[in-house]
Amino acid sequence: MSESSVPNGPNPAMIFETLNAYQRTGALRAAIELRMFSVIHDRPKNAGEIARECNASVRGIRILCDYLTVLGFLAKSEQDYSLTPTSALFLDEASPQYMGAMARFVASDEMIRIFGGVTGAVRRGGTLLPDGGSTKLDYEPWIEFAESMAPLMMPSALFIASLVSERFGQRPIRVFDIAASHGQFGLSIVRQNPASTIVAQDFAPVLTVTQRNVEQAGLLDRYEFLPGDVMTIDYSGSFDCILLTNFLHHFSQSVCEALMRRLKERLNPGGMIVTLEFVPNENRISPPIPATFALTMLMTTGEGDAYTFAEYRRLFENAGFHSNQLLDVPQSPSRIIVSSV
Amino acid sequence: MSESSVPNGPNPAMIFETLNAYQRTGALRAAIELRMFSVIHDRPKNAGEIARECNASVRGIRILCDYLTVLGFLAKSEQDYSLTPTSALFLDEASPQYMGAMARFVASDEMIRIFGGVTGAVRRGGTLLPDGGSTKLDYEPWIEFAESMAPLMMPSALFIASLVSERFGQRPIRVFDIAASHGQFGLSIVRQNPASTIVAQDFAPVLTVTQRNVEQAGLLDRYEFLPGDVMTIDYSGSFDCILLTNFLHHFSQSVCEALMRRLKERLNPGGMIVTLEFVPNENRISPPIPATFALTMLMTTGEGDAYTFAEYRRLFENAGFHSNQLLDVPQSPSRIIVSSV
Repeated sequence: MSESSVPNGPNPAMIFETLNAYQRTGALRAAIELRMFSVIHDRPKNAGEIARECNASVRGIRILCDYLTVLGFLAKSEQDYSLTPTSALFLDEASPQYMGAMARFVASDEMIRIFGGVTGAVRRGGTLLPDGGSTKLDYEPWIEFAESMAPLMMPSALFIASLVSERFGQRPIRVFDIAASHGQFGLSIVRQNPASTIVAQDFAPVLTVTQRNVEQAGLLDRYEFLPGDVMTIDYSGSFDCILLTNFLHHFSQSVCEALMRRLKERLNPGGMIVTLEFVPNENRISPPIPATFALTMLMTTGEGDAYTFAEYRRLFENAGFHSNQLLDVPQSPSRIIVSSV
Repeated sequence: MSESSVPNGPNPAMIFETLNAYQRTGALRAAIELRMFSVIHDRPKNAGEIARECNASVRGIRILCDYLTVLGFLAKSEQDYSLTPTSALFLDEASPQYMGAMARFVASDEMIRIFGGVTGAVRRGGTLLPDGGSTKLDYEPWIEFAESMAPLMMPSALFIASLVSERFGQRPIRVFDIAASHGQFGLSIVRQNPASTIVAQDFAPVLTVTQRNVEQAGLLDRYEFLPGDVMTIDYSGSFDCILLTNFLHHFSQSVCEALMRRLKERLNPGGMIVTLEFVPNENRISPPIPATFALTMLMTTGEGDAYTFAEYRRLFENAGFHSNQLLDVPQSPSRIIVSSV
């Protein structure tokens, strides 16, 4: 809705739109739940047609479609609505890149409820959730994360697999996939290099989802599953590659450093640690998605943050990793740090 | 956060940001609740200083300030945060145009809860709230609206007063202020024309707020208060000017038309009805604020809508108003229709 923003000078509309921003979440989530984008699919349809196929009211569909047209998820011509490039590629279930399911994690009732309490968390300096929030062993939303976030992570997973392939070629490597979740990071590596084996670690209920995805991929024979908390768990052997994807931001810098020290002991000579993160620039106010991600860490963890590259590099160096390379992930707001001893 | 938007081509960030939009609401609401903009006021301060004065944690304040910098409500230089033109004029309590209180209505827990149910309301074609939602006689949020929305309405109130003054000069006129709420529309007229008298109507608990504001303005002697439902209430006499501010959008077109017929009988010769509304363009997808407002009507009313000017004109003409002039309100997303017989 940036059309209404006046970049120079005071702009009350900006306040009104920001205070109303929760409505955008509600509208897009509803369109996904109603399968509206899948119903419109490949030809323009009017509100009556869409309503019939979505099993909804014409009035409701017309108002929701107009709202989503303002947001850029639909195009309107006369009385007909059609998909835009973004909704066609990512919100139509017929697309192989469909990622609508992520609404169930990103815009869950629980997350929306949590963000009703920003004032309290800012006063306290950390999450108001019990037991440290999302870092506790049985934090339920991680099951939904594993179920629904894989499509959003595919560009990162493919990019990581290409980095691993660049380093190791088709050699038989052993990979430690920490907080494996949906499993796509490890799976992408195995698909590129069938000689690799993956040790997938996560909390037990989440690892059930990982295992199911590995089974569906027909790659169970390349996997070992390690349920538990990576900070304290026992595991054997050493690794050529260790994946830390969307993980370190949940913890304080000292906890991250302690983990890195521990992992260094299990890294084979010539091995690499691949860290996938939201890494804001040093000013912490850009780019938008990594910079604003810090608030999610405030709301859901005790001590997590969106760390800058300078912060990661310092703590990685403290832990004994003297080569740390920052890379942008194509088509993703995430970045990667490749670390070696 | 429009920097991250890619206007051409598929853009998954747009989906991620929209599903996360509720976080913007939570962040701005918290900053208002913490009085952060008032604390920063007229000089740059670092997170430590702001935290001390806001009685909050440094970590929480730093993360919240960075978030609001990304959104454009703060500017950051080195480690110091300062107000932007928008936050200085509208979010610092020391400003006479402070409008932060509107968060209590626009971004209330209740409204956020309601917008968790867009799917259900789209299926049904109307609000899921009991008794028709916001049109029922004792809908509690109208008290909060009256308490907190006056500053946002001031540009419209002053513009309406100038229109009334243009038409009637300083003649003693009788004004019917329907759904008077905070009372600023009637009050602005009386301030420009002390010979005018206002009949202020609203539900009884809301009218208590109106009356308090009129009393504080020292203008009780110009007022008559009429509690009840304007659709069914008895009232005496006739009017030179009738104000329908933010009112008609709650109802079906046929209810609006019936009300206009009734009001026509009470309009003096040469009189005018002033309708203040969110009026989208005929395509219903612009400008952004009026176009998206229809969703609020879906969620909170049985039959309300953001009607286009063509729709208003048709139903006003049906009711006997043959002159209907559409005007933009300066510095506001609202529009005005001036109707005469």
